[in-house]
This record gives sequence, C-alpha cells and structure tokens, in this order.
Amino acid sequence: MDEIEIHWLREEEAQAGILIEGLPGIGHVGKLVAEHLIGELHAEKIAEIYSLHFPPQVILGPDGVARLARNEIFLHEGEPAIGFLVGDHQSASGEGHYLLAEAYLDAAEHLGVSRIYTLGGYGVGHLVTEPRVLSAVNRAELRPAVETAGAEFNPDEPPGGILGASGLLLALSLRRDMDAVCLMGETSGYLADPRAASGVLNVLSALTGIEVDRSQLETRAAEMESIIGKLTESDRAADDDSLRYIG
Amino acid sequence: MDEIEIHWLREEEAQAGILIEGLPGIGHVGKLVAEHLIGELHAEKIAEIYSLHFPPQVILGPDGVARLARNEIFLHEGEPAIGFLVGDHQSASGEGHYLLAEAYLDAAEHLGVSRIYTLGGYGVGHLVTEPRVLSAVNRAELRPAVETAGAEFNPDEPPGGILGASGLLLALSLRRDMDAVCLMGETSGYLADPRAASGVLNVLSALTGIEVDRSQLETRAAEMESIIGKLTESDRAADDDSLRYIG
Amino acid sequence: MDEIEIHWLREEEAQAGILIEGLPGIGHVGKLVAEHLIGELHAEKIAEIYSLHFPPQVILGPDGVARLARNEIFLHEGEPAIGFLVGDHQSASGEGHYLLAEAYLDAAEHLGVSRIYTLGGYGVGHLVTEPRVLSAVNRAELRPAVETAGAEFNPDEPPGGILGASGLLLALSLRRDMDAVCLMGETSGYLADPRAASGVLNVLSALTGIEVDRSQLETRAAEMESIIGKLTESDRAADDDSLRYIG
Amino acid sequence: MDEIEIHWLREEEAQAGILIEGLPGIGHVGKLVAEHLIGELHAEKIAEIYSLHFPPQVILGPDGVARLARNEIFLHEGEPAIGFLVGDHQSASGEGHYLLAEAYLDAAEHLGVSRIYTLGGYGVGHLVTEPRVLSAVNRAELRPAVETAGAEFNPDEPPGGILGASGLLLALSLRRDMDAVCLMGETSGYLADPRAASGVLNVLSALTGIEVDRSQLETRAAEMESIIGKLTESDRAADDDSLRYIG
Repeated sequence: MDEIEIHWLREEEAQAGILIEGLPGIGHVGKLVAEHLIGELHAEKIAEIYSLHFPPQVILGPDGVARLARNEIFLHEGEPAIGFLVGDHQSASGEGHYLLAEAYLDAAEHLGVSRIYTLGGYGVGHLVTEPRVLSAVNRAELRPAVETAGAEFNPDEPPGGILGASGLLLALSLRRDMDAVCLMGETSGYLADPRAASGVLNVLSALTGIEVDRSQLETRAAEMESIIGKLTESDRAADDDSLRYIG
Repeated sequence: MDEIEIHWLREEEAQAGILIEGLPGIGHVGKLVAEHLIGELHAEKIAEIYSLHFPPQVILGPDGVARLARNEIFLHEGEPAIGFLVGDHQSASGEGHYLLAEAYLDAAEHLGVSRIYTLGGYGVGHLVTEPRVLSAVNRAELRPAVETAGAEFNPDEPPGGILGASGLLLALSLRRDMDAVCLMGETSGYLADPRAASGVLNVLSALTGIEVDRSQLETRAAEMESIIGKLTESDRAADDDSLRYIG
Repeated sequence: MDEIEIHWLREEEAQAGILIEGLPGIGHVGKLVAEHLIGELHAEKIAEIYSLHFPPQVILGPDGVARLARNEIFLHEGEPAIGFLVGDHQSASGEGHYLLAEAYLDAAEHLGVSRIYTLGGYGVGHLVTEPRVLSAVNRAELRPAVETAGAEFNPDEPPGGILGASGLLLALSLRRDMDAVCLMGETSGYLADPRAASGVLNVLSALTGIEVDRSQLETRAAEMESIIGKLTESDRAADDDSLRYIG
Repeated sequence: MDEIEIHWLREEEAQAGILIEGLPGIGHVGKLVAEHLIGELHAEKIAEIYSLHFPPQVILGPDGVARLARNEIFLHEGEPAIGFLVGDHQSASGEGHYLLAEAYLDAAEHLGVSRIYTLGGYGVGHLVTEPRVLSAVNRAELRPAVETAGAEFNPDEPPGGILGASGLLLALSLRRDMDAVCLMGETSGYLADPRAASGVLNVLSALTGIEVDRSQLETRAAEMESIIGKLTESDRAADDDSLRYIG
C-alpha cells in the first residue's frame, strides 16, 4: 500500500468541470449535501482513494464485509458534469491533510475540473434556528456571485480560519488555476445537521444551477428538529421537576 | 534497525494455509485464544518481527533478560498447517498500523497462506454474561459458513468499524487474494476476558476443525468470573453499608 | 506542495544585515513588536514561506479570500537594512520546528544577514506591572551590549529554556556564523501583551538604533490595561457581592 | 541539521571498554549517578549528539548563551577506560527513541565498547526509605554477578518493562555483541532522588571497581531527606490542625 493511492474505476475517460467536496466534518454538513446530490443525481463512483493517513480502521458494510477506510469520487455526467469527493475520513495527521489535498487536486486535474465547491459546517456551539451560510473564496472576483446566491462573508467566521480539506482545497487549488468557493452551514456542531445542509444546498443550487428533489433532506431535517424539540421539552420538564422537587 | 524487520528462525521451508492473528487488544480476547492454541498445539516459533513503530520499550523475561518488544509467528505443522501471529504490541502510530499490516501479509504470503482469521474483542463497556461472537469478512461468500459456526454479523457492531491489525488484515488481505474472517468476542473491555475468548474459540474450532483441550481456558474463565462475582458482591455490600449509614 | 517552500517575491536582489523574528508565541509579544516595526517602517514583503508543518488550516482575508497558512519575510531598505520574519503559525510538529528554523536561516543567508534578533514573550502566569525584558545570546561577547540596552540575563528564566523558533534560531544561527540575540518580554501569557512588546521594542531600539513612532503600540497597551483594570475591578465587586450575599 | 548528528570533539583516538548511560528519566536517578561520576573522575567531553528528535528547545547556560538541546559523551581514560552518555533530553517521539539508541550504539562501537551499563529509576509512586536496586541484563550469564553486587531481579518490576534509552540500549546492544546491564534505583519518582542514585552507584561500583568520593551525593541525599522530612511534618501538622478544627 502506498502513502496515497487513487484507483480509477472505469476505462473510458471521465470529464467534469466542477468538483464538489463533502468529506466528513462539523455537523456532517458537507457530507449530507454531497451524498444527497449523489443519490438524487444517481452519480456513478469513478475512483477510490486510500491512504496511510486515514485512521487505521476498517468500515463494515451491510453484508458483513469489511473494507479499508477510503474516500471516493463520484461523477454526474449531466450539464454541467460534476465530480463529487466524499468518503469515510479526513486525514488523521496534520501533514497528511496537505498531502491528501494535493492528491484530491491531482484527481481534479485529471478530470479537467476548473471550479471546486468545498462544503462544510461552521460550528457555533449552540442551537441555530435560522442557520446562515458562510463562505470564503480563493479569488475576490468570485465573491459577488456567492453573495447573490445567499451566502455571507465574514473574515472572523470561523474565527481561526477553515480547517482540513475544505480549507486546503480552497487555497491550494489557486496554484492550479482553479476557482474555488467554500460554503459552510452554520450549525451547533453537536449533531449531523440536515437543516444546515439544506441551507448550503440552496446556495450551491443557485450557484451551479443544479436542481434536485430536496424532500429527503427536508424530511431528515424535520425529523431531527422534532427529536431536538422533544429533547428540549424533556429538559424543560426535568427543570420544572427539579424546581418542584426543591420547592 | 530497519523500520520493520522480519527474522525467520529456521532454515527449512515453512508452509501454512491458515494464519490466525491474536495480537493484544480489547479484553486481550484474540491474544488469549491464539496463545491457548499455540500452547495446546505445541506450535513452534518460526519468526520474530521488530519495528520502530512498536513502543520504545523492552520486555523483561523470567530470567531477568530484557528483549525488544516484538511480534512473533508460530507454526503448527498439522492438518491443516496453521501459522499464528501473536506478540507484545500493536503499532504505536497510525501509519505504522498500515505498514505493519502489510509486513504481516508479506509474511503470510511467504508461508503460502490462503485464509486469515483475525481474532479480537468487541468492548461494550458493561459485564456480559453470555458473550456473543461478532464477525466480519473480506468477501460476502465467506459469511454463511461463519454464521453456521455461531458468529453474528451486525454492520453497527463495533459502531466505528474495526481498529488496528484485526481490521486492516481483513481488508488488506483481499488485495492479495486471501480470504479473511474477523471474529470478535463481546466483552466488557475492562479485563482480560477468557470467557469471551472461549466463545471465539468455539466459532474458530467449528470453522477450522481445530480441536484442542480447553480446560485451561475454562479454568481461567471460571477464576475470572469468581473474582468478578466477589467484586460485585462487595460492591453491593458497600452499597448496603452506605444505605445503612445514611439511614 | 513541498515540505517547506520559500517563494521570493521580487526580482531585484534583496540584502539585509539584520533579521528580526517575531512569529506568534506567548503573549504575541514578538509578533506585536515585529508587526509594529513593519507598519511604521513601511517594510515591503519579499518572501512567503509555506510548509506541511504548519497546521492544516487556511486564513480568511478581509475580502473573503482564503489563503494557506504561511510565514512571511519583509524588508526595510534603510540604514541598516532589516529583514522581518513574521507570520501565521509556528510548526505544528517537533521535528518541523527544527526543519523550519533551518529554512528561515537559509533565507537569512540568502539576504546576507549577519545578526538575528528573535523576539518573544516569557510567560509568568500572573499580571506584571513593570515587565522586565529577559535575554539570551548565541555568543557570550554579545551580552554586555544587551545588558546596557536594558535587558536582563537569568539562566533560570524561562526555566526550561526557550521553545520554538526564537530558541532554535538563536542556537542554529551560530552554525552559520551569525550573531543572535533573543529578547523576551515578561508577560502574564494570558493575553496579547502590548506593554511587554513596548519593553522589548525599547531594548531592540537601543541595540539597533531603529527609531519609530510608538504611539500606536502605547495606545494598544493603554487600552489593554484599561480593559484589565475593569476586569479586575469587576472581579473585586463580584467578590464583595459574594461576601455580602454570604454575610 | 541532520536527523541525528554525532560531533566528535577531539582528534586523537578515544577508546573505552565500558559505556555508562545516565540520560534524564524517572527521579533523574541515572543522570545523578553518571554526572556524579563524570565530576569525580574529571572525565573529558569527547562528543556531542544533536537530533531533530529532541524537543525543539534550547538550553540556557550560566553566561546567558543558549545552545541546542543535546546529549554528550564523556571519557574517563583510567583503568578501565569508561565512556559516559549523558545529556538534556531523551527522544520526543517513539521512533526517535529507536533511532537515537542505534546512534548511541554506533558511538559505542566507535569507542570499542564491549559492555554497557544503563542507569535509571524505577518509580513506585510512594516514598521509599530503603530503596532497592532492580536490574535487567541482555544475557542471562550476566545475572549472577549483578545479584552478588546487590541488585535484585524481578520480571514484574517495572511492570510494563523498561522504557526509553535504558531499555532499548539493553536490548539493541545484543545485536552488536555487547554485554549490557540495566540498574534501576527504586524511587518515588516525584523528585530527583540522590538516595536512589546512591544505591545504584553502590551496585555499579561493585560491578566495575570504580571507586569515587561519594560525599557530594550523600550530602545531596541528606538535604533532600531533610526537605522531605519537613514537608511530611508540616503535612502532619496541617492534618492535626484540620482535626482540631473539625473537632
């Protein structure tokens, strides 16, 4: 096994002008959006990425078959043709983050990508009822269109900058003359957050023209909010109980 | 000293169709099973494995002689011939886990292994009276026989997948066209667990036809349960005392 | 991306006899001094340094553009000509600290530097009203002038020696026949400390003859002290309240 | 700077049959013994060892001069000629421990060393009034003489084996046909422990015939015991006070 391996899965050439990254991260916001799109667009898996920098851990499939942790590239051959970078893990080491980001960009170049969207969450540590979508770009010229599409820019959010693949792809893609936009859904960060994902998908659709059925994502968001609502109520009830008990 | 060293200890060629891995891990379940088999089958040590990726620590022998931390391969030249991978430590670094797993598979290829059993524990965090044996395989075709032998498959157990050598050998062996089955004994994870080991040995015997005297493992399990019984009783007594004291 | 990259930004040759290092660290003392000097002297950025050893994180600019974490070299072409080493981060790994320090010294040699000042904070864990400036040098001959300039030498301060770039540049520069002086402003270490920075700037000015307007640094120090004064008062008030409440 | 550098400091050839290692560790027991011997025997420094694997930290000298963290080899050209390995730090990384141990053995081979004594502490977590000296060897033949000299062997002490340079030199030296004996002074592990060092020196003197004035070590041990005695008394007084207060 090499330090990083990209296995291309089909023989005919694959082309995609756009790459959408949705690796695991805060609130799994990027992952939720990218996997929703892959499902709705019936995108085809065209590559698997393996690395010593992923955690030394195998993933169990529904059939009881274990496989190496990996990331994957899917392709939707529509107009526009879109590649998706999704998977199990980000790097387990600091240097691995840089090396994997370069490998992802090698794959993007191989596909002829000229624009990258990196999707993630921006964890604020408390429940958010109307989550904003924060953005960053790799060239100032890209900003107006992103604002028109509904995202906000604030150099202090997230406070320390953007960690991991979403950040590094944004900055390193400039070296390869690719445009890149990062979209971050505001989220508590405690749970997988389909509401934040829905907000990110709104902006992404406006920017790319991709239209998909959103009912599944909306259903998951409604379910999650119902669960949170009950938890919050039972918290309040517990608080009332304590008061009664003390009183 | 090289990054990873395999020292073969005998000159005549060694052959084994099966490799059983029982390195240290949760509840030392795999280690207990593999070492029990090595003892009962009087398997011969045929290789030692040294690595910079093991902790920088030496092991004290009963004679006061210190030696490097190492893993070892034993050989039982019966029908079937079986190799055993056991030892002091797993890797101390994430990347080392991958590199060591590849070295173990190099050794397995050298022995002509076509099937690997990786043994471990599945820690559930509470005492288990009738521990199940969970399994995962590297090809779906292997599953029915493993179920017949008494193990269960559940893609959510262990929840995050399988960590370390037991997991990586399972997944990486597929690249070398070896079959692999992982057997995990359900255990609290707090103590070395011969009862969980006994369960794993049941399934392994059914799968491989290996029959050994099990009295030593059963005795250890009974002793351990007696100790736990006393601890639990004394806990209850302490609880009663506290109640009395408060009352 | 290479392990460490230095990108020189201008074509004409750059020369500087002195290099002043002010990377982030305790109380951001070195950073405050170096950035103040860069601003007041209108120094020009002449190099950017990128590395896998920086945290895998991108920095957001005021225009919404993200860029890789990096360090930078600025040049003031006065008499004397001075280079400044400032930036976002120190190394995220132990070995990276050594490798980056060597890269900084490669850059210093490229500029013809013969003397280095490394600036930092010495965290004492409590508020300091009249912060001292501690120093260390790489050759004993340098010490008298530094004492005359107002810094103190104490082999037990900081107790464990000097960590990171400020320390390694001091020691490694001797191998390249460069003189080096480390100046550390005594600071609580809890907050960015412009008062400690002001003390370090005093000593640095005396040593180098650099004279700059200091009002901005003084204003920030006064503001910080006012904030701390209010925090301390409100602490006392809170203490009084508690007493009243209990009493 | 290379990963590991050994700088030999004198031109004429150096020879030593014995190497005594006393790097920093638990209770600084080995360091205290080795540095005491270096001082009493007026041993000469003949080598300095630098490494990226040491912490990225410089050490302050009494003259205000900072230098890289390093280990050192001293030579006593008596009968027998003895080398001493002492210094500032052990490795900061697991792999570095192995690589540095190999470098120390390269240096030992260069000196013609045929026997190594590694000195350390065995931390037991409570005050010890009559500290034992525990030992381990790299060949069983070495054990009787070490027992005669007053050390004990117990495969369960220290429980997990021997960590760091003292352990690795013991095990790795066998590969170079050197004899090695590890001596570990029983110590609380909380403080530098000259009493434990004195016990180790007793055994080492009996084994090597090295006789030195021990008054300085004894004085430090007496001082330390007086300090601990006072601390313990004041603890008891505090306890009495609390009792009085509660009563």
